[in-house]
Amino acid sequence: MGKTLAVSPLAPASFPELPVISGVRFASAEAGVRYKNRTDVMLAVLAPGSTVAGVFTRSATRSAPVLDCQSKLAAGGGASDAGAAILVNSGNSNAFTGARGQTSVAELCMAAEKATGVPQSRIFTASTGVIGEPLPHERIVAKLDELTGNLSEDAIKGSARAIMTTDTFPKGACKSVTIDGKTVQIAGIAKGSGMIAPDMATMLVYIFTDAVVEQGALQSMLSSLTDRTFNCITVDSDTSTSDSLMLAATGASGVDASNSDAFRTALSDVMLDLAHQVVRDGEGATKFVEIRVTGAASDADAKVHGLAIANSPLVKTAIAGEDPNWGRVVMAIGKSGAAADRDLLSIWFGDVLVAEKGWVSPDYKEADGAAHMKGQDLVIRVDLGLGDGASTVWTCDLTHGYIDINADYRS
Amino acid sequence: MGKTLAVSPLAPASFPELPVISGVRFASAEAGVRYKNRTDVMLAVLAPGSTVAGVFTRSATRSAPVLDCQSKLAAGGGASDAGAAILVNSGNSNAFTGARGQTSVAELCMAAEKATGVPQSRIFTASTGVIGEPLPHERIVAKLDELTGNLSEDAIKGSARAIMTTDTFPKGACKSVTIDGKTVQIAGIAKGSGMIAPDMATMLVYIFTDAVVEQGALQSMLSSLTDRTFNCITVDSDTSTSDSLMLAATGASGVDASNSDAFRTALSDVMLDLAHQVVRDGEGATKFVEIRVTGAASDADAKVHGLAIANSPLVKTAIAGEDPNWGRVVMAIGKSGAAADRDLLSIWFGDVLVAEKGWVSPDYKEADGAAHMKGQDLVIRVDLGLGDGASTVWTCDLTHGYIDINADYRS
Repeated sequence: MGKTLAVSPLAPASFPELPVISGVRFASAEAGVRYKNRTDVMLAVLAPGSTVAGVFTRSATRSAPVLDCQSKLAAGGGASDAGAAILVNSGNSNAFTGARGQTSVAELCMAAEKATGVPQSRIFTASTGVIGEPLPHERIVAKLDELTGNLSEDAIKGSARAIMTTDTFPKGACKSVTIDGKTVQIAGIAKGSGMIAPDMATMLVYIFTDAVVEQGALQSMLSSLTDRTFNCITVDSDTSTSDSLMLAATGASGVDASNSDAFRTALSDVMLDLAHQVVRDGEGATKFVEIRVTGAASDADAKVHGLAIANSPLVKTAIAGEDPNWGRVVMAIGKSGAAADRDLLSIWFGDVLVAEKGWVSPDYKEADGAAHMKGQDLVIRVDLGLGDGASTVWTCDLTHGYIDINADYRS
Repeated sequence: MGKTLAVSPLAPASFPELPVISGVRFASAEAGVRYKNRTDVMLAVLAPGSTVAGVFTRSATRSAPVLDCQSKLAAGGGASDAGAAILVNSGNSNAFTGARGQTSVAELCMAAEKATGVPQSRIFTASTGVIGEPLPHERIVAKLDELTGNLSEDAIKGSARAIMTTDTFPKGACKSVTIDGKTVQIAGIAKGSGMIAPDMATMLVYIFTDAVVEQGALQSMLSSLTDRTFNCITVDSDTSTSDSLMLAATGASGVDASNSDAFRTALSDVMLDLAHQVVRDGEGATKFVEIRVTGAASDADAKVHGLAIANSPLVKTAIAGEDPNWGRVVMAIGKSGAAADRDLLSIWFGDVLVAEKGWVSPDYKEADGAAHMKGQDLVIRVDLGLGDGASTVWTCDLTHGYIDINADYRS
């Protein structure tokens, strides 16, 4: 792990008070996979009747646990009356570990079945940390009885801590929603700070609800909301081999939310909150940047432009330097590959109109742009003047801190 | 310009002795466009009979001078018996300057025609530096008589200096080739150190030869060799609005090289030499990295993988930290989008086999990988085990120096 990192200046003031989600219990433990003197494994056990959905990295070199989760979900995830379990370790990603990686996953699932009574077909594992070193799964196996014995509905915060790697703060978010006069709860945790880019970076996210949501509806809700939340954030354009986002519905509230727009909106809010927290913990980040693109030829084009701006090292270093360098924004739009007409382009930093119709705005004063850049939460707005396509993406700046963390931490 | 940058540790020992290219004369001057106490404008005048070819940025927001050069070359470049001229300034890119940018180009071409006698249809300009500020073209116009008066066949090195921006050393390369018992010369200069990525970054390159090369052959040679040289280098994945690569053949040697393989090879060598020098002057670079990809499903796939590795901030910071972090190479291959099979992948750092068949090689010792990473010129080799596709790309590491330069220099 090397040195201890200072908490990100963009971190929320505190971890939120997450509600109990009836039907799911948590535990964490110190298995000593790699780190010393901290928890590094979490177990969540879901009551019989729970449905589970997942979205995973699209990397062609994805890890053994990701492949295992995908094949189990593709097979329907087994009977939901069997309950389900999620077992996650930090410190070692069990990625690019060949046949041995698959053996580790099998050993973990077998041991978890034995300890929890949940069948292996409903046990989902994830590993995050160093790539290419064998996972000492026996250290986790040795902790399964302790974990099972400690399961508690109140222990979600401990799980948020156990899955951290280079994260500087644990991430949680929640929302309640009233459907037919009854309240359902949604609560989630996440880890991730580097290798963050669309298609799921080194990011693990687990979201739980006590609503009743039919399996197919749960998966389709999760997939479509991911495109507007986790796939709209980027720290460094790098995509990990291990990203996993899972959503489980215990049904304990007895309220069916399968077709509820209010539930969908609340879930989207929780996902966006967690996604923003991941960016706020971007390695070395000192600025949180929202990039709003409008007037594109299509929504897809708008997202291409937004991500080109968000991933440009020159834009990100200018932001770090508090330089309202709109020329680099123009450069990024130009290279993105999506449609743009230089002479129809307008750019704002915050509410300050910087450039319009292909040139600097006549009323623009550099001091106004510079004043906006001194803030911690920035908005860069671009209108392409071509159509109705729009997209918003989020990123952070590129600082010396990023180099410090990544030039000497083997992650 | 801010502070003066130390010369890159990867710079060649000295500027090469470039041969005179009969039929082309150079001059440079201090026009004071932005910089003080240094030259910032170059003029090259080509004898009647010269042919000219060009390749330019594919940015959708390209600069006024790029658009002007492209339209002149598309129109055939005018009669070659009129000669040609190239006029370049540093300090201001005349990009994203609206209608005023086009006016500046027109004023420069008109004044250059007046001073040199070369018709405007054969005058090619380029500007490099700050984006979005009006070009004070009158300062350049005021220097045209001085420039024309100072033209000399011996002054190419001065031109290489005049076009520098954040470059820490002037870049030149040459090669001679014997065709039918007669010698022809090729000599070129380049500038570029940041915003370097395929599709021509903030890079200006001018190459001259005394061979006779028919216009169509010259353009096709330049275009195809660009794909294997300048489009295979990347510093930071950012693409500028101003990149221009021009090749002029004066024909003064009387030797026709239009169909000469030897000439083509020599030209490729000069282009690759200049391309490598651009990487060696990458902003903040301390390591020159060659990435060789073999065994891909196609050459195009190999290049996609190579550039994904070369552009990954996590790979580049690991290199800066001399960390043989092959897991990040696996990650970059996984995210590239081109075909890969994790379990067929092999990776070498230099001659050290690090990973094979989806896992760390049984004979690999971390100390061997680490020893290779301490060098200044590194090779990362990847074999995908899928087919015959191959590509080599070049990049540099991502260091604190890059942040220093880009977080406070308005370029």
